[in-house]
Amino acid sequence: MEIPTSYDIPHGYAFNGISCGIKQSGEPDLALIVADQLCTSFGAFTQNIIRASSVDWNEKNVGSTRAIIVNSGNANACTGPQGERDTLAMAVETATRLGCTPEQVLVMSTGIIGEVLPMDKMISGIDSITDHPQATPENLSLTSRGFMTSDRFSKVASRRFECDGQEFSILGIAKGAGMIGPKMATMLSVFMTDFPLNRSTENLQWFKRIIDHTFNRISVDGHTSTSDQVVLLSRKVEEVVLGDQAVATFFENLWSASEELAKMIPKDGEGATHLISITVSGPQSEEELATVAKTIADSPLVKTAVFGADPNWGRIVSAAGYSGVDFSPETTTLKLNGFLLYSLGTPATFDAEKVSLSISENEQTEIQLQIGAPIHAATFWTSDLTYEYVKINAEYHT
Amino acid sequence: MEIPTSYDIPHGYAFNGISCGIKQSGEPDLALIVADQLCTSFGAFTQNIIRASSVDWNEKNVGSTRAIIVNSGNANACTGPQGERDTLAMAVETATRLGCTPEQVLVMSTGIIGEVLPMDKMISGIDSITDHPQATPENLSLTSRGFMTSDRFSKVASRRFECDGQEFSILGIAKGAGMIGPKMATMLSVFMTDFPLNRSTENLQWFKRIIDHTFNRISVDGHTSTSDQVVLLSRKVEEVVLGDQAVATFFENLWSASEELAKMIPKDGEGATHLISITVSGPQSEEELATVAKTIADSPLVKTAVFGADPNWGRIVSAAGYSGVDFSPETTTLKLNGFLLYSLGTPATFDAEKVSLSISENEQTEIQLQIGAPIHAATFWTSDLTYEYVKINAEYHT
Repeated sequence: MEIPTSYDIPHGYAFNGISCGIKQSGEPDLALIVADQLCTSFGAFTQNIIRASSVDWNEKNVGSTRAIIVNSGNANACTGPQGERDTLAMAVETATRLGCTPEQVLVMSTGIIGEVLPMDKMISGIDSITDHPQATPENLSLTSRGFMTSDRFSKVASRRFECDGQEFSILGIAKGAGMIGPKMATMLSVFMTDFPLNRSTENLQWFKRIIDHTFNRISVDGHTSTSDQVVLLSRKVEEVVLGDQAVATFFENLWSASEELAKMIPKDGEGATHLISITVSGPQSEEELATVAKTIADSPLVKTAVFGADPNWGRIVSAAGYSGVDFSPETTTLKLNGFLLYSLGTPATFDAEKVSLSISENEQTEIQLQIGAPIHAATFWTSDLTYEYVKINAEYHT
Repeated sequence: MEIPTSYDIPHGYAFNGISCGIKQSGEPDLALIVADQLCTSFGAFTQNIIRASSVDWNEKNVGSTRAIIVNSGNANACTGPQGERDTLAMAVETATRLGCTPEQVLVMSTGIIGEVLPMDKMISGIDSITDHPQATPENLSLTSRGFMTSDRFSKVASRRFECDGQEFSILGIAKGAGMIGPKMATMLSVFMTDFPLNRSTENLQWFKRIIDHTFNRISVDGHTSTSDQVVLLSRKVEEVVLGDQAVATFFENLWSASEELAKMIPKDGEGATHLISITVSGPQSEEELATVAKTIADSPLVKTAVFGADPNWGRIVSAAGYSGVDFSPETTTLKLNGFLLYSLGTPATFDAEKVSLSISENEQTEIQLQIGAPIHAATFWTSDLTYEYVKINAEYHT
């Protein structure tokens, strides 16, 4: 998927992606995002207690950020004190080149766990990438490719909107195809905006709420990564004063861009042939409905059935049954791609061949489970489980 | 795997397995276990809230049991009121033929979810199987095959032991290869013994404790089934009076037979090439250590790495990190098949080719993770994730 030139790029940001020699393929493995001034920044980080040192660094320093340096092909995770020193060295080198403090540089590393970074290549790569960051479509393409590991396509989304007669943009980049089982945030994603935000309690809550409903509602294999993080950069423009309605418009746009990017991850799930969307509705709390949806999403039996275009609805209903959320079969109804398969505790009569065709002929499979009066609803996205997933993860040391 | 003639068969039990026409292959799909008198019975049942009607029936009636009627190929789960009527009809027909009450007959059904049982075949099968149950090795083989669905081999274990100068036996049968993610009990398993037991609180606790440490410590795909159950039958012989030491000897033997049978399930996991044994030790509670072991066992990334003979230890350590159990990387050490891979938070130096060979050349892979001073330990068993698993579950409607 080539980056179209139509993405909206917010004012004041530049970026680039280059190959510094980590990936043997010669693909970009180093990316830089830099703003023309200090930005307000927001972050969401993995809840895995085995964390990459870059995640610790970013959680400590997020808030006021000038640049983000990203490398792919090596996660610099489980690398002990050496790993911590290398994260610091990346921040220091980038800061020195850009003329800011190391604390104003966030660091992201993604790739194999447990290998030490080749710091000679990193340092000379940082020296080179800080030379010519630009806000061009070509550089955006190189930057997003510099985030990728086992991804088949790069993941970019943008929004443009007007508030009080002024135009603003949001540009987001994400990566991820495997080790996707988010707890609070997933894999790497960066949003840039020229909409001015401060780190008010309300804004932090909005950010968390959006992440919880988008990046925290996807999985490929249910394995929470050591390196998950989502960062939002907002360029402060002191003279701009915007009202509550403008902030709401901003977060609406951020939510929609987040959902678009987040869904690209299971769509690009390792070996995936289907994006599976699971919506569960009922009188239970949204959190409980999301737990049911996630339990269905994590079942290898559901995921292989979708790959095999098999309307094996017993696997879906029984997965819901072990989610830990209380409900009764008598109030449970299941639809798959709009076909009624199970109705109020009893098997429905359906044309299995038609349902099977609706799965095999579409790239997206829609599962709708109602476990009582549909007062609330939650959606979770995942990918199917295929031969290719096993091949990717058994044959290659990633 | 043919049943050897050397299994110890306890006094007073007879059994048989026949084909009643559910399985198209003509393999046995109906099994009967019957005692010459009423037995004390103990049961552990699935915690899936979507349960087969046979599980509800057994939970209500367990305690005093004469016979168990088992069918495979159809789970009679998610079949609504019709399913309940069919479970009752199986118990009534078996009871009528054996001369006991329906409540003294337990019913087990395993196979596809959501299809109604062919009751004409079931009833004539029950009429025929109740004719000639016998305690022969041939009948034991037919009986254990009558439990099987996607199993490649039948699962039988026995123990013989002496207490107070008398000899007793335990004979256990289990089935299971897919939809294995137990919560309290897994798939079908029946134990018969001529050791006399009453349903004292202490005995019930022992039974639960053994199930928790054996059948609840295995997974294939983490998907808890609608039909999981383990039942123990004990023939009461009123004149036998045995002391506490004898009861302890019995439960020791039951524990060891349970562990042997339970481990056969992931060894026979759908498409599996390796049995993976995961032992986690540390100062945490045994329950927390078991949670860490189960989280590692459920990671598709760990399971595919073992299939690929890839000593990709970052996947193991990072899975432990998202288990929800608190520990520090600095006190964490990982060994795989005896090789040290990660030591107190830092990668160890090891010969990757040697470790890879130790995986590919052995049917069992041993993972030992220490997350602090090894005061307690818990072991969990699972299988690897292979092309064949995807094939079995994508291509066949099971």
